Amino acid sequence: MISVILLGAGNVATHLYKAFKSSESVKVAQWYNRSYSSISSYANEVETTDQLSDLKEADIYIMAVSDDSISQLSKDLPFENRLIAHTSGSVSIHDMDKKNQRAVFYLLQTFSKEAELNFSEIPICIEVTEKLNLQFMKDLAAAVDCKPYKINTEQRQTLHLSAVFVNNFTNQLYRIAHEISDTKSINFDILKPLILETAKKVQDMSPYMAQTGPAKRNDKKTIKRHLKQIESEEHKAIYELLTTSIKKTHGVTTHRKTKSIHKKPKNETGH
Amino acid sequence: MISVILLGAGNVATHLYKAFKSSESVKVAQWYNRSYSSISSYANEVETTDQLSDLKEADIYIMAVSDDSISQLSKDLPFENRLIAHTSGSVSIHDMDKKNQRAVFYLLQTFSKEAELNFSEIPICIEVTEKLNLQFMKDLAAAVDCKPYKINTEQRQTLHLSAVFVNNFTNQLYRIAHEISDTKSINFDILKPLILETAKKVQDMSPYMAQTGPAKRNDKKTIKRHLKQIESEEHKAIYELLTTSIKKTHGVTTHRKTKSIHKKPKNETGH
Repeated sequence: MISVILLGAGNVATHLYKAFKSSESVKVAQWYNRSYSSISSYANEVETTDQLSDLKEADIYIMAVSDDSISQLSKDLPFENRLIAHTSGSVSIHDMDKKNQRAVFYLLQTFSKEAELNFSEIPICIEVTEKLNLQFMKDLAAAVDCKPYKINTEQRQTLHLSAVFVNNFTNQLYRIAHEISDTKSINFDILKPLILETAKKVQDMSPYMAQTGPAKRNDKKTIKRHLKQIESEEHKAIYELLTTSIKKTHGVTTHRKTKSIHKKPKNETGH
Repeated sequence: MISVILLGAGNVATHLYKAFKSSESVKVAQWYNRSYSSISSYANEVETTDQLSDLKEADIYIMAVSDDSISQLSKDLPFENRLIAHTSGSVSIHDMDKKNQRAVFYLLQTFSKEAELNFSEIPICIEVTEKLNLQFMKDLAAAVDCKPYKINTEQRQTLHLSAVFVNNFTNQLYRIAHEISDTKSINFDILKPLILETAKKVQDMSPYMAQTGPAKRNDKKTIKRHLKQIESEEHKAIYELLTTSIKKTHGVTTHRKTKSIHKKPKNETGH
């Protein structure tokens, strides 16, 4: 049985608490948060505290707190040479105070309090300062049915950036489509199966291979008509920039009569 | 039993053929294509032809051909006052020759020859010139387990534009994430659950409500670090434009010390 003490009460901490609680091989020994009110409702099922001096012994202390708080919290911990971990996508493992053994337990998923998550689908990026803790971190991931990946700080920061593209920016494209369809009183539900299929398609096929549409086939007529349809200048700029990006990826020349010698080979950027 | 004659042999035509073939209430009476070689492999299971003059009688003639060919093909059909339909997201219903009764049967989904599709998930946008054909078109959609939506030409063109945002542009964001993660030798598989969860989230929640991340919470430090991490100028421009777009949607001011009177109300653009 792995004993865990959880520090923090945000989305990641709350989802982790639930995942640990439903695991047969993990016991949450204690839950700490600076502000007690956020965790008080759990007081009947787990030991809770707002005092660092109250912290008990455990196999690992997981600091699921904001990026800016990690370094200071690691300094404030009133013990040494135990295993501590943060859950951030961007904070270096070395930003934690070296009086303790350090690790990273970064869950690459989108969290919101409202949405229920299937934990078994979540990749966990693991990093350790002491090699001997690597297997323990993998066991902890396995205990909540997650897939562990050994990822260093630089790679983790790159994943965090990539996640902004596939999650926040993608979601903003959904939002723009919602706005555009609203102007013509179209039910956004009609677009939902396409949204899902687009995400499913790249589970088995590279995004390069999955691409279709007017930009990829350099369908100037459709692109021109779309730009005419778009009312917002901001949406127009996004349409133009992403169309250019697709053309570049797929080696589509923007000048119709450019000789083929100027053409990028089609597979230059392909996988 | 609905009898259908299919014209064209592209992705949409091929997927439609398979869907009709597996439906108990539709019979493909004939399959026409200008170039015979594309349909010759089906000759043992359906009547095939490359001659318009050979076309038999049927309840509906579905022209699943390229946008530019629809008008001419509708003129070339050697019969009158029958029901014909195109499958395009952007061509007006009136672009088809009025010697026949006209309809639109637009499947809002991404098609590629490689990917298998679950037809029952696909919304079909239906439009008719003769009201009496509306129920027939709905029955045809139901015959392939699809959900029919009555959508006029202007709405359909708006959907087609919206689809570029949620499908082609979203896929290009996946591609960019693939490129970025490749530079640090990160397995793209790690990002796939996040891609899927992002799409799943908006099935039950508006994209506005689903948004998270540095742009929405105006986390300048992370945004600055991300921009520093990005090597490609093109990716940087996309990062900046979509970050600005998210900020605008969520009423985040770009100047830190702007008084709250200048602040957009948080729910102004929310649903």
